[in-house]
Amino acid sequence: MNDFEFESPTHFAFGRGAERKTGALVRAFGGTRALLHFGGGSVKANGVYDRVVASLEEAGVPFVPLGGVQPNPREALVREGIALVRREGLDFVLAVGGGSVIDSSKAIAFGAVYDGDFADYTFGKDCKKPPIVSAALPVGAVLTIAAAGSEGSCNCVISLGPENLKRTITGDRLRPRFAVMNPEFTFTLPPYQTACGLVDIFAHVAERYFTQTEGVLVTDELCEAVMRTVVAESAAVMANPRDYDARANIMWAGTVAHNNICGVGRAQDWSSHGIEHELSALYDCAHGAGLAVVMPAWMTYVHKTDPARFARFARNVFGVGRGEDDGAAALAGIAAFRAWLKSRGLPLTFAELGAKEEDIPLMVRTLNLGGNTLGGFRPLAEDDVTAIFRLCLG
Amino acid sequence: MNDFEFESPTHFAFGRGAERKTGALVRAFGGTRALLHFGGGSVKANGVYDRVVASLEEAGVPFVPLGGVQPNPREALVREGIALVRREGLDFVLAVGGGSVIDSSKAIAFGAVYDGDFADYTFGKDCKKPPIVSAALPVGAVLTIAAAGSEGSCNCVISLGPENLKRTITGDRLRPRFAVMNPEFTFTLPPYQTACGLVDIFAHVAERYFTQTEGVLVTDELCEAVMRTVVAESAAVMANPRDYDARANIMWAGTVAHNNICGVGRAQDWSSHGIEHELSALYDCAHGAGLAVVMPAWMTYVHKTDPARFARFARNVFGVGRGEDDGAAALAGIAAFRAWLKSRGLPLTFAELGAKEEDIPLMVRTLNLGGNTLGGFRPLAEDDVTAIFRLCLG
Repeated sequence: MNDFEFESPTHFAFGRGAERKTGALVRAFGGTRALLHFGGGSVKANGVYDRVVASLEEAGVPFVPLGGVQPNPREALVREGIALVRREGLDFVLAVGGGSVIDSSKAIAFGAVYDGDFADYTFGKDCKKPPIVSAALPVGAVLTIAAAGSEGSCNCVISLGPENLKRTITGDRLRPRFAVMNPEFTFTLPPYQTACGLVDIFAHVAERYFTQTEGVLVTDELCEAVMRTVVAESAAVMANPRDYDARANIMWAGTVAHNNICGVGRAQDWSSHGIEHELSALYDCAHGAGLAVVMPAWMTYVHKTDPARFARFARNVFGVGRGEDDGAAALAGIAAFRAWLKSRGLPLTFAELGAKEEDIPLMVRTLNLGGNTLGGFRPLAEDDVTAIFRLCLG
Repeated sequence: MNDFEFESPTHFAFGRGAERKTGALVRAFGGTRALLHFGGGSVKANGVYDRVVASLEEAGVPFVPLGGVQPNPREALVREGIALVRREGLDFVLAVGGGSVIDSSKAIAFGAVYDGDFADYTFGKDCKKPPIVSAALPVGAVLTIAAAGSEGSCNCVISLGPENLKRTITGDRLRPRFAVMNPEFTFTLPPYQTACGLVDIFAHVAERYFTQTEGVLVTDELCEAVMRTVVAESAAVMANPRDYDARANIMWAGTVAHNNICGVGRAQDWSSHGIEHELSALYDCAHGAGLAVVMPAWMTYVHKTDPARFARFARNVFGVGRGEDDGAAALAGIAAFRAWLKSRGLPLTFAELGAKEEDIPLMVRTLNLGGNTLGGFRPLAEDDVTAIFRLCLG
């Protein structure tokens, strides 16, 4: 096991009606004037926005609304939010939405107190180690989608510039001070969006699980626990979108998957996320859909690096490959993963995603590896990434 | 799944040499003058005390030492600590030791700022819902034993009065601000003490796992993950006490077992802990040893309340009872648990623990249930507790 430091200080208020605590939580964490940040119309249509506003008013917290966050949140709205926070003298950023809204909120919370351009702290451009955020306004989140895990994580991903280059900002100061999580808010998500969330959650664990670090049984076990939960509850929630317990287990799994309790002490991979970011940047597809295409291809490309790990994945997550040798079990696990994705209505190929073979060189170029490599499980050079994209052709 | 609120804000510094960060962490969490609280001679003999002192000196943190914490920590030393903190104007309590030292530190940290008798906030005396601690000095912990999970938990247990009545104080403000966790510190623990720690960790999960709450798959999975880890690594650490990874997995499992990440959204039990406290109060035995005697007896007494849950435990934690009906599987699981405890050198009966049949009425009386019941899985009245104690006779 590797040495590590870990903290996950977010206060989670989970359950039916939890949104009624929002205003009091903003106050408890020092907010006196909040930016109320949200996305499109869904939180207004389903009443969540009004419930949060009522809670803020009850707690006597004035707020300034800023809507319009898009999936794969953009730099321009972050800059608008930073200016608004400064102009209005706001001291808290409250996100109402999913991962994109929370990520945009985190970037605003950082940018508002940073004496410079917030994009200075993004990384991914040249794969250099980024600066770590050491100060930000407090952020709170009212979560409406189980997927990104941003409600408990220390990161955010923002799309920069006209090319929508997806870049990350990181630091424990970006972790939300609180997260309000009412699983009922996810009852009305369309099946495809639910499925994209499931694969995002699964991927957050898998990116940590596929490691070359030895002697990490406790986190191996925790990772497998979360992946099994996602697979099992995916069937329940597809059968009945209003299954409260299934929605609740998936929502909490989404947090546990990405606050890093499953990742401490391990080298982590993250190459599938890196590769997928090029897909969602170019085609504006859902991140989870892109992951459904990339991850099985990545697995197919790298599994021979450590067949025993992939065999463990097969046996302990999908219950296949028992009694087979590790190589055969590894392939059985990848096939089971692919079958699970397909059963949830997710794309598996470029064609199903609307991606194009001829864009592969552009995406590899935009990934901008230079002489560096991507990923911690098996370091990938540009040729490897090209090969993985080609495996996505089906 | 039940509604819940959860926070676990402790900063964990885990790994080889982590103790060198102690002084800087005290400073980072606002400490300027610390009480350095510890137990007997072991931290002095093994050099941990000196390393912590060196780190405090390097960070320029003055401190006042207070040693002498006993297993099952006592009220008298807590009162001495409270007086010392007040007299010396200390603003931080640093625990160097295991659960007893950390628990004593938490009680001092609370008592020092409470305008009254700290024992006002203890519960268990009459099983009434206790007051929740809302203020305490910051506590940090340098952990030397993997067992109690106090380094991440919101509770402490103190033995009150001449009868050593074990009573609990609770509140998120008691969670340590940081925990320094170097698994090497546990290399020299005697096998019996290691085994007592293993069962304590296991019990913290089991007390959460045995629930009547439905629809809690994610925490069921997390609980089983931790219990399997403890069982698997127990063999490694018994074979080689200096197996770093095994010690590390056990140490982190001990934290995860008790910071409540495995317990959210569930009704919990805690009757084995309640019953065991009477044993360690009367005979001053190790808490883990008492649990090894009580838990299988409790399981034997209550398993028919929900054979399916016990069957799941059997199949998923010990890999027994597959292909059997739930009733048979439940019994196989309890037998496997008992066999595991025995294989680790733990007592299973009153005789092995040094407890006496004739003391049962006294212990039941001291438990002081009155007309109330104990435990969340199956509420136990005095007669039930008597029956469980009698099952401990072997």
